[in-house]
Amino acid sequence: MSKQNPTAAPLSGSIELTGHQYGKAENRVVRIYRDRPRHEIHDVNVSTCLRGDFADAYLTGNQSTVLPTDSQKQTAYAYAKEKGLISIESYGLELAAHFVDDIEPVTGARIEIEEYAWERAIVDGTEHDHTWVRKGQEVRTASITQDDTGTWVIGGLKDLVLLKSSGSEFTGFLQDPYTVLEPTEDRVLATALVAQWRFVGTDVDWESVYAGIKATIVMQFATVHSLALQQTLFQIGRAILEEFPIIAEVRLSAPNKHHFDYALERFGVENNNEVFQAADRPYGLIQAAVSRSDAPDAGPSWTPFSGWLS
Amino acid sequence: MSKQNPTAAPLSGSIELTGHQYGKAENRVVRIYRDRPRHEIHDVNVSTCLRGDFADAYLTGNQSTVLPTDSQKQTAYAYAKEKGLISIESYGLELAAHFVDDIEPVTGARIEIEEYAWERAIVDGTEHDHTWVRKGQEVRTASITQDDTGTWVIGGLKDLVLLKSSGSEFTGFLQDPYTVLEPTEDRVLATALVAQWRFVGTDVDWESVYAGIKATIVMQFATVHSLALQQTLFQIGRAILEEFPIIAEVRLSAPNKHHFDYALERFGVENNNEVFQAADRPYGLIQAAVSRSDAPDAGPSWTPFSGWLS
Amino acid sequence: MSKQNPTAAPLSGSIELTGHQYGKAENRVVRIYRDRPRHEIHDVNVSTCLRGDFADAYLTGNQSTVLPTDSQKQTAYAYAKEKGLISIESYGLELAAHFVDDIEPVTGARIEIEEYAWERAIVDGTEHDHTWVRKGQEVRTASITQDDTGTWVIGGLKDLVLLKSSGSEFTGFLQDPYTVLEPTEDRVLATALVAQWRFVGTDVDWESVYAGIKATIVMQFATVHSLALQQTLFQIGRAILEEFPIIAEVRLSAPNKHHFDYALERFGVENNNEVFQAADRPYGLIQAAVSRSDAPDAGPSWTPFSGWLS
Amino acid sequence: MSKQNPTAAPLSGSIELTGHQYGKAENRVVRIYRDRPRHEIHDVNVSTCLRGDFADAYLTGNQSTVLPTDSQKQTAYAYAKEKGLISIESYGLELAAHFVDDIEPVTGARIEIEEYAWERAIVDGTEHDHTWVRKGQEVRTASITQDDTGTWVIGGLKDLVLLKSSGSEFTGFLQDPYTVLEPTEDRVLATALVAQWRFVGTDVDWESVYAGIKATIVMQFATVHSLALQQTLFQIGRAILEEFPIIAEVRLSAPNKHHFDYALERFGVENNNEVFQAADRPYGLIQAAVSRSDAPDAGPSWTPFSGWLS
Repeated sequence: MSKQNPTAAPLSGSIELTGHQYGKAENRVVRIYRDRPRHEIHDVNVSTCLRGDFADAYLTGNQSTVLPTDSQKQTAYAYAKEKGLISIESYGLELAAHFVDDIEPVTGARIEIEEYAWERAIVDGTEHDHTWVRKGQEVRTASITQDDTGTWVIGGLKDLVLLKSSGSEFTGFLQDPYTVLEPTEDRVLATALVAQWRFVGTDVDWESVYAGIKATIVMQFATVHSLALQQTLFQIGRAILEEFPIIAEVRLSAPNKHHFDYALERFGVENNNEVFQAADRPYGLIQAAVSRSDAPDAGPSWTPFSGWLS
Repeated sequence: MSKQNPTAAPLSGSIELTGHQYGKAENRVVRIYRDRPRHEIHDVNVSTCLRGDFADAYLTGNQSTVLPTDSQKQTAYAYAKEKGLISIESYGLELAAHFVDDIEPVTGARIEIEEYAWERAIVDGTEHDHTWVRKGQEVRTASITQDDTGTWVIGGLKDLVLLKSSGSEFTGFLQDPYTVLEPTEDRVLATALVAQWRFVGTDVDWESVYAGIKATIVMQFATVHSLALQQTLFQIGRAILEEFPIIAEVRLSAPNKHHFDYALERFGVENNNEVFQAADRPYGLIQAAVSRSDAPDAGPSWTPFSGWLS
Repeated sequence: MSKQNPTAAPLSGSIELTGHQYGKAENRVVRIYRDRPRHEIHDVNVSTCLRGDFADAYLTGNQSTVLPTDSQKQTAYAYAKEKGLISIESYGLELAAHFVDDIEPVTGARIEIEEYAWERAIVDGTEHDHTWVRKGQEVRTASITQDDTGTWVIGGLKDLVLLKSSGSEFTGFLQDPYTVLEPTEDRVLATALVAQWRFVGTDVDWESVYAGIKATIVMQFATVHSLALQQTLFQIGRAILEEFPIIAEVRLSAPNKHHFDYALERFGVENNNEVFQAADRPYGLIQAAVSRSDAPDAGPSWTPFSGWLS
Repeated sequence: MSKQNPTAAPLSGSIELTGHQYGKAENRVVRIYRDRPRHEIHDVNVSTCLRGDFADAYLTGNQSTVLPTDSQKQTAYAYAKEKGLISIESYGLELAAHFVDDIEPVTGARIEIEEYAWERAIVDGTEHDHTWVRKGQEVRTASITQDDTGTWVIGGLKDLVLLKSSGSEFTGFLQDPYTVLEPTEDRVLATALVAQWRFVGTDVDWESVYAGIKATIVMQFATVHSLALQQTLFQIGRAILEEFPIIAEVRLSAPNKHHFDYALERFGVENNNEVFQAADRPYGLIQAAVSRSDAPDAGPSWTPFSGWLS
């Protein structure tokens, strides 16, 4: 029963600016390394967010402490050359440190990055030196946060679409008067996974950890006999933490992309979990956080920029 | 300078489930009132999220306390008739109360709703009784959160696309070595506004407040001479709070949808702020929270479901 | 039974370039008229396509007859000032004539335009002079084609979302062994209409014709007692032609946006066409062309640019 | 100069239904083969379109010859089991033949299919038997058309995103007063290719041909030194026809996904084609058809269903 008074007294206190941040969202930066016969490519979407005392810009319109979002954009492009763009975590750390350390009114920065992977074109069985095909699978993500208390790196991925056609059941659930779902001991389980993992420290081999975590996710999804998507998520989170002691916490959000057994019996056609309708909406949405008991404080590492109010 | 040790010691603590919630996202419910000659329509997208101790489902796969997301879907449709669907805030309150009060293991619920507005078809100058055209403008939103400490309602809107062709400038900003932006005293200002406002109490005339807040937003955007989008946002937040003492806090997120003056002079064509390129990406993104000093505690009202990890 | 030989002989003829066209797609041009206290805005997405003998560019890479797509973009922006941008049909005619008449190798041009409507912000009951809210309803479209045999204008709209909660039935249809659909004498009918109409001549009051056709579409959808979406489409097409003798032909494509009666009876809740599930996919898709018997030849007016191979 | 009379006489001829077709769009069918230890998956989006004399449904609302789109949906799901779903071309041929041969008023059918590829999950270096990761690269497409004159199969793909960081130039183009583009002898060339190829005959090893054509496209894109996207397209089309004598015609549509060299020199940073801005809109759009001189007549093979009026 709600404790909040339904007919609460109207408010009359003073009106205050109680939070603010701003930045440039979705800079599409592509970096080619071509100082070698075999080129390299890194293709990212980077958003930069500045934190600090910019209250005057809001309260009076005085912009004297506001670094334009256009300048942040220029910096994101320049740093792809000046500092390089190999691992998105490193690139984000450079950008965050620059804004906090070099721009006087800035006391905190958050850098959010998506990376789109490319694979080399195959020509006569051999990888080509300067041609690629967009890989198109999951999007790799990173969020780097720096303020006067520390620096935090969150790695991650999204849109990793997984499906298993066996090894998944859903039974024994709670029943209420609106429950008509039948339990099933064999169903298709599919999701488009979002996973984010918080590092301790920044001295990390970002590329090998990313590859390792993705492999772990796929392996757990494949090999865990799933009693529910909830259970699969926890097993994924646990496996990542067990394997990577530099990860303090894993967060997972997984739509249950329903594949409904199609009713073919009415047409005299047997359907033994062979034909499914892939549904769009609605979908179950299952979420979990899995952490180490000795995880250091998360600080502002989970405070979003572009996802705020989404 | 970062305080976090770049070469932090690896972790070895026990692995724990430190957070979880689940529900059914994006139920597309359409409710027609047809017990009168002039029908009414309400067209919503509702997501339900349950909170409580469902740890066993994650840790062992035991589903005995888990109300299926399918049952939540059935409830969302049934309640559109049983309780009615006029104001999304009321409908969400009914759903939240049901899950928390009637389903034993559930200790908290969050209901997130979008509403798509329709306007009546005009036939020979008259509004038609049972035909509509999708209005297509902003999407109205609501988030209702209930737990054992109270009930909170957040109203809102998104995708309210606003543009002014005069009355906006951007000058006097901070300059750094990457600053090449020219100050301007006359520019197009455009945004696709996201606004969310937190109510105190639940005894509210939801429809008139919504209409009033939207009108206030539009009026402020039009009449404030903008020195920056930051300033416009604060003025919008302040005006809402001044006008509605039942609102404790307003949160605003506004992409700066850049309209770049197109360089026509090189073709011998004068362009005095008449021809613009509407850009897609990147965009500035400006955010603010404006509150009453006597606002009650926000509790879990801003803890998201579908936007988590987005 | 197919007449084509399943085991057709392999081909050995010479390989030829049998068709080609190219251009610049999706120029986002915004034109403000500000030489008056009350500004005007026109917000369009324009694609330009050139036709002619550009075979060398394909066959040998010789670009000497190829006007860069970048030059086409510059022209689209410049013409918004030089020729003005009030009606998209007029603006498109100017662009098409320019490319065909002024650029030597160009023998044909196709201009495809979308327009996004804005309505004036309301401040204290009065329309504001230089602030707008994106209207968000249907997108107005136009395709202008010119070649050495003539000039054709097609007007249109898309994403006009219409719904009626009564006055629609679907009965008496053909049954086959896969038919399980129940006939219904009262259903929700909803669509997101695409309509395109071909003009004869170019001496047209584009704005009033557009407003008139949209009103006619809405009125027909509302007032025709629908025995099927097919019938509604034909009535819409016929009404447009009857009212506008300058229209030779109307083409209509209408997804049947299914609203399924939700099965609430199993929960003891009556549902007399009051609660519906709005489905995403699949959807019926109904299409029709309605023409005047004395319509002049359509020439290349329906040959698309951006929709080619879509 | 246009030959069409700008002030054409208004029309007064009779109003007629001059074209029509209808069907069910976007059935999301997933077929699992599980009669073996190593499951197989096929994941498609199929649209069915019927052609014939359904004029009464439009003119009078009489549905007696109209097979409901719902029945078409049921058939699409049932046939995934009854006829199987291995190659989308074969599955489409079965559906088309059924509608034309078995449903009396139907004289023609068009089946349009998209397929989403999955790759097996890797567990400890080994492919898993019943778990997959969505591949996410290009979408494979097919259009099957049957009428009383024959049967036609078009294979294809879309969204194959390709990029080369060298081996592309654009020089020697036509200049007009709006031309400001600088010629370049070294640029990034990127596209999201749409390709469709028309088969002669239906006795084809669909899987190996598809794999072969995709490899050919990638190889040509990589190895042709591109003087323009036009030239690359023709080379791709020619190579496909040379390699596959069962292909009569190739159609290609390629957005030029511009990657603009970012101006870093103003910040004292050298940028030798290393840092690029990936632009969204506008984009060049280049299209070509390449055919065999002895290609049989295309009949209705290119007449679209879902893309009509797009």
